[in-house]
Amino acid sequence: MHTTEPLQSWQDGPTRTAIINFVQQVTDSTHPAYVPPAERIAAFDNDGTLWCEKPSYVQEMFIIKYFHARVEQHPELRHVQPFKAFWEDDRAYFKALSIQEIGQLVLEAVASIPQAEYIKNVQAFFKDTQHPLYNRPFTELAFKPMLELVEYLHAHQFQVYIVTGGETDFVREVSEQMYGIPRSKVIGSAVMVKFEMHDERPVLVRQKSMQEPFNEGAGKAINIHLHIGRQPILAVGNSNGDLDMLLYIEDQQRPTLPLLIHHDDAEREFAYEHGAEKALQTATERDWQIISMKNDFKHIFSFVPEQITNTSA
Amino acid sequence: MHTTEPLQSWQDGPTRTAIINFVQQVTDSTHPAYVPPAERIAAFDNDGTLWCEKPSYVQEMFIIKYFHARVEQHPELRHVQPFKAFWEDDRAYFKALSIQEIGQLVLEAVASIPQAEYIKNVQAFFKDTQHPLYNRPFTELAFKPMLELVEYLHAHQFQVYIVTGGETDFVREVSEQMYGIPRSKVIGSAVMVKFEMHDERPVLVRQKSMQEPFNEGAGKAINIHLHIGRQPILAVGNSNGDLDMLLYIEDQQRPTLPLLIHHDDAEREFAYEHGAEKALQTATERDWQIISMKNDFKHIFSFVPEQITNTSA
Repeated sequence: MHTTEPLQSWQDGPTRTAIINFVQQVTDSTHPAYVPPAERIAAFDNDGTLWCEKPSYVQEMFIIKYFHARVEQHPELRHVQPFKAFWEDDRAYFKALSIQEIGQLVLEAVASIPQAEYIKNVQAFFKDTQHPLYNRPFTELAFKPMLELVEYLHAHQFQVYIVTGGETDFVREVSEQMYGIPRSKVIGSAVMVKFEMHDERPVLVRQKSMQEPFNEGAGKAINIHLHIGRQPILAVGNSNGDLDMLLYIEDQQRPTLPLLIHHDDAEREFAYEHGAEKALQTATERDWQIISMKNDFKHIFSFVPEQITNTSA
Repeated sequence: MHTTEPLQSWQDGPTRTAIINFVQQVTDSTHPAYVPPAERIAAFDNDGTLWCEKPSYVQEMFIIKYFHARVEQHPELRHVQPFKAFWEDDRAYFKALSIQEIGQLVLEAVASIPQAEYIKNVQAFFKDTQHPLYNRPFTELAFKPMLELVEYLHAHQFQVYIVTGGETDFVREVSEQMYGIPRSKVIGSAVMVKFEMHDERPVLVRQKSMQEPFNEGAGKAINIHLHIGRQPILAVGNSNGDLDMLLYIEDQQRPTLPLLIHHDDAEREFAYEHGAEKALQTATERDWQIISMKNDFKHIFSFVPEQITNTSA
């Protein structure tokens, strides 16, 4: 039994009440909404839901840093695209490309590397890099109320998954330490690997293709099916890319709780709706619970942020 | 604590001893081989490892029955390939095709069906169909010693996965009931699904493509990486298709236990090495533990089989 109140960083109010009521009902074996532990699945988006995604995705900052490191090691790459554009921060070069084309360039540039070597770069990034505005490691940028929500669900025998557009291998390096979510419960956009034997030892080598489907939009619902094989009863997201996942959990014979985070706190975090317009509209139409970071979150992080300059978000 | 001896259907001998010693070491926090619970991953092949795969794969029997049912519902399909060949048991038709071509035909024939409708067929199959020689439902054809091994590993905080060449959605329908292994821990060959909204409700529709890679051979190692993100420390297989998975677990700084089942019991089950030649040879070369069904298994199933006619296996 819990002796302390759950969700302490949440303001008292309709959102906190809705979450607590939902968890109490599905875990009460005498309640008609009861759900056995094996079926208590929760799915959390990562960027903008579990951690801060502004001024740009953490994954994006990692990629830029990774390209810079490659150019430093191999100066001749300074004249080769896309390394040149990364090195010179040539925004016009990227603006002329679709997001798919940029993705393919990045994939090709980091292909043919053994998985273990790639992971060393990811680990170094998380060790050495700080958020450009909060000046703290990214591993400290989890939203405290969300950490409490994950913990609260775990305490009630939920299986909590991260379902992220980010790269599976990237997010796995921090999921246990930051969120207490095991590596195996990270479903992301996955770079394909190839199995090779080198000197009679097995090696996974990164390829220049992604596993289909990409884990965004409909891909999130599809990958939940492929990886979990059960519909979550609770899901949290913050953008249009999470909309299909939130719709997907709704179609069940039992109560479900779709939650949408609204980034409306320009003082402590960032205020933006770009990329979330359709999700916010659907949440309103379908009467989903919208989490206002400004009104529902007593704290944003485990530290108290200084006010940040927020003009470019 | 266990008050009864574990692995009661196993003969005393080197295999049973090797398993018990391994589990005792990795769960003993004072032992140099200790592995924390989160990293105690075990991977089990399904066909021929957890359940009987002869005289043919259960999945294959399901597919044949599924095609027959479709022809019964739509008699005009009797003149359309591949329905015609299934209906007439036209082996010459299939012999002229590669396994990939047969796979593609099957995929196309069952595509565009909502996932929920397909699953009804799977459930009906397991309810209505019996093994042609044992005359029992397939759900009774789990190997009893393997059920005890799964239970023993669960009792020692292992996370046990099924890693099967069979179809994920097919095996998931029986994994919890037969083996006590949750649906989310079934990694198989997955038919791609599409996410659609029908009358504002989400529907997953089966496509005529498989998710890459197919879960056999190197695909098993790759999908373990993609789905679990950790190397198992114990793996069990019985055929060449399991070889890469067994090789993959070996490359670690800690002790691992690769196990290969040898189907050498013509009286109680089937005796065959076809499709397992390379696995058996590698197991001998690398000094892996080979499980002899004849010598290591006190019982094969939870029932005592009558002697079966075993000429065609």
